[in-house]
Amino acid sequence: MNIGKIETTEHAALTSRLGREHVADIVEFLNGKTAQEATEIVAHMPLQWSVEVLDQPHFRDACEVIEALPQDKAVALLEGMSADRASDVLRWIDAPARGHLRDALNADTRTAIDHLLTYPEGTAGALMTTEFVSVPANWTVKQTLDHIREVEHSRETVYAIFVLDPTTKRLVNTVSLRRLISGVPDAPILSVAHAYAPISVPATMPQEEVARAISKYDFLAVPVVDSTGHMLGIVTVDDVIDAMIEEQTEDVQRMGGMEAIDEPYLAIPFAEMIKKRAGWLCILFVSEMFTASAMQFFSDELEKAIVLALFIPLVMSSGGNSGSQATSLIIRALALQQVRLRDWWRVALRELPTGIVLGGILGIIGVIRITVWQQAGFFDYGDYWKLLAVTIGASLIGIVTFGSLAGSLLPFLLKRLGFDPATASAPFIATLVDVTGIVIYFSVAWLFLHGTIL
Amino acid sequence: MNIGKIETTEHAALTSRLGREHVADIVEFLNGKTAQEATEIVAHMPLQWSVEVLDQPHFRDACEVIEALPQDKAVALLEGMSADRASDVLRWIDAPARGHLRDALNADTRTAIDHLLTYPEGTAGALMTTEFVSVPANWTVKQTLDHIREVEHSRETVYAIFVLDPTTKRLVNTVSLRRLISGVPDAPILSVAHAYAPISVPATMPQEEVARAISKYDFLAVPVVDSTGHMLGIVTVDDVIDAMIEEQTEDVQRMGGMEAIDEPYLAIPFAEMIKKRAGWLCILFVSEMFTASAMQFFSDELEKAIVLALFIPLVMSSGGNSGSQATSLIIRALALQQVRLRDWWRVALRELPTGIVLGGILGIIGVIRITVWQQAGFFDYGDYWKLLAVTIGASLIGIVTFGSLAGSLLPFLLKRLGFDPATASAPFIATLVDVTGIVIYFSVAWLFLHGTIL
Repeated sequence: MNIGKIETTEHAALTSRLGREHVADIVEFLNGKTAQEATEIVAHMPLQWSVEVLDQPHFRDACEVIEALPQDKAVALLEGMSADRASDVLRWIDAPARGHLRDALNADTRTAIDHLLTYPEGTAGALMTTEFVSVPANWTVKQTLDHIREVEHSRETVYAIFVLDPTTKRLVNTVSLRRLISGVPDAPILSVAHAYAPISVPATMPQEEVARAISKYDFLAVPVVDSTGHMLGIVTVDDVIDAMIEEQTEDVQRMGGMEAIDEPYLAIPFAEMIKKRAGWLCILFVSEMFTASAMQFFSDELEKAIVLALFIPLVMSSGGNSGSQATSLIIRALALQQVRLRDWWRVALRELPTGIVLGGILGIIGVIRITVWQQAGFFDYGDYWKLLAVTIGASLIGIVTFGSLAGSLLPFLLKRLGFDPATASAPFIATLVDVTGIVIYFSVAWLFLHGTIL
Repeated sequence: MNIGKIETTEHAALTSRLGREHVADIVEFLNGKTAQEATEIVAHMPLQWSVEVLDQPHFRDACEVIEALPQDKAVALLEGMSADRASDVLRWIDAPARGHLRDALNADTRTAIDHLLTYPEGTAGALMTTEFVSVPANWTVKQTLDHIREVEHSRETVYAIFVLDPTTKRLVNTVSLRRLISGVPDAPILSVAHAYAPISVPATMPQEEVARAISKYDFLAVPVVDSTGHMLGIVTVDDVIDAMIEEQTEDVQRMGGMEAIDEPYLAIPFAEMIKKRAGWLCILFVSEMFTASAMQFFSDELEKAIVLALFIPLVMSSGGNSGSQATSLIIRALALQQVRLRDWWRVALRELPTGIVLGGILGIIGVIRITVWQQAGFFDYGDYWKLLAVTIGASLIGIVTFGSLAGSLLPFLLKRLGFDPATASAPFIATLVDVTGIVIYFSVAWLFLHGTIL
């Protein structure tokens, strides 16, 4: 690849412009370019800037740039980047190239990255960085401040300082920089430490729980420890925000009944788009085939009272809608830990009356609709239209109640089975309610219309 | 209210226990108590701790505690709390009590709170706090550090320092504390300032956009300015995380087809639960009535070919499912600004072939289903079962394509009209696709079955 294609003067202009902008804006500018153009521009930047650009998780072509650059430059960038970001980039580079790059790194960076790469994606271990400030508990305030001034440029954050036991190296306490700078220089570091016991997370904790901990305690960084209480790294608040946004996208997509996609919509290859959507669509289609089976079962009734068919979509969809309301309420309540698994019966006891009232409201509207259409002569529902109206009203109460109950309990079931409650909950509940809805509808119809049109 | 009900010794025990825990854990403990118990405990805490407790946005009974306490204690608490939190609490206290409390506050606090209360909820102005560190641009590094040490305890964050023009008082630049402590004491403060122009947000900016800015620039705090460039306050990263979680809950609930509820599920009063859910449910029910109208229109065809009714739920729900996939994809893509309003035609051009392929896959499964049931003798679809199978297959292609297209374009339409794209998108699209699906289905049936069973 010819990285000299853009003229030197152009580069000087670009460079001076970029120098006045925040690195996040530079990344936005680069993301608007092709991978090749981005590589050229990054290759011509001063090293410090290109490190900053590559350190941004939002920079789309990080892997392509690292792969396209000459190895010595790529290695210098990886060594300059934060360890968590460098390991993320290496994670996505294919095997032979990754091995060559890794071998060329200096020993410190290689060890740090190798270590981070052992944690599975989506855990505190994979999210954390090893570039934090720690000091032994027998240091003074002044010693700590001097140390921070020295290492500041190579640390992801210096606002949280981690105090370790001088002999065991276990995490003893945390100090915030704001308290530290107000401390008496000769006082021991622990004199400005927090009063509460240090709060840490294990390396295996899923990233959503890490996000919850950071948000609960308003931390700028949370320490990650191993099973013996030794510090492995820190997860910072900006990483958590990125993880939260990613999580939110996955939740919305799963609720929409598809596999999660982490690429931007317009960048997803066509085949992948089909793959991610077809799977769930087929599962739901095959489940929904039971509606055809249920209707075949009631085909005699249907033949006798074709008028019943007219209201099937209306009655069924109401069950689906009430179910998806209940499901989305409980998905969030579970995610925010407002309800726990053991609360399922409390939820059921709330949804039962809620479903009856909501179904009753819809039932009344339905009865009014049929009465008005019949009386105004818009459509003739036959001699027994009053019984038909009662059938629709009563079915709606039954179906909406079933929808609310099933919709609220499905997330508990999914969570109990170890799945994410958001997984295809809404469309899955619609399908379940559709099939049950047909059975309820025809049973209620048989009850009210038996001996007349049935 | 008798706040002496818990014995003094018990309080001493509680107090010592609370003293060793993080304030967020104390709040969690208090949230498990009744409002009255929580008030008693808070009333017996040392003032500094009760201020910390009330400063936590997750503390549920803040308004109740402030209202129940004697006025002098309540005023001391409000004055000690951060201004943004105090104004949030006052916002929710009813008129006469709020006025009395406000009048009893000292002038500084009252001015700050009055100012914050002028901004509508959900904007940068309502989210910001006025307790930030600002220094004139002609100060030195040492002057700034000394100032920070002095005011540290009364500021929400001291990690971002805002440099103002000494005469115009406009925001000139920002300095991070980590750079400040490494600076030469006698050097001017601007020598350690960031190279890029200061990034700020207007007070009227919606909180989602503030969250996006903080997440994009990895800020710990973003300055809020008025139209003349004067600083009004800062929004900190922890406020943004809380706002993001709230936003996420609202999105999930709106996608589930209901009004957003910000209370915990089990704490929502029954009447409110019905109110929040019945509205959209009724709107969707009335819209879905068009399915009955559409089927009435085709009732002659239905009477001739009752077998067509069997597949209505199956065919309709597939359209709804593909629509909700497309909708959820585009809702997120719009929220993350991966696609913009003007990209609607790009999205349409992607969804058209996607819908055709997905519909084709379902169509093939549908044809196989009918063939197997017919050949195996599970059900007799009549002499023209082959034409029926073709009808189902072709309808599925049409309906899934329509669902994908409509589902992907609805969020654009909602956004263009000024609504949140998440608003009831998924159930609304299902309703739209249901009605259209019936028309497509019977039209395709007429095309293939006309002259045979129709």
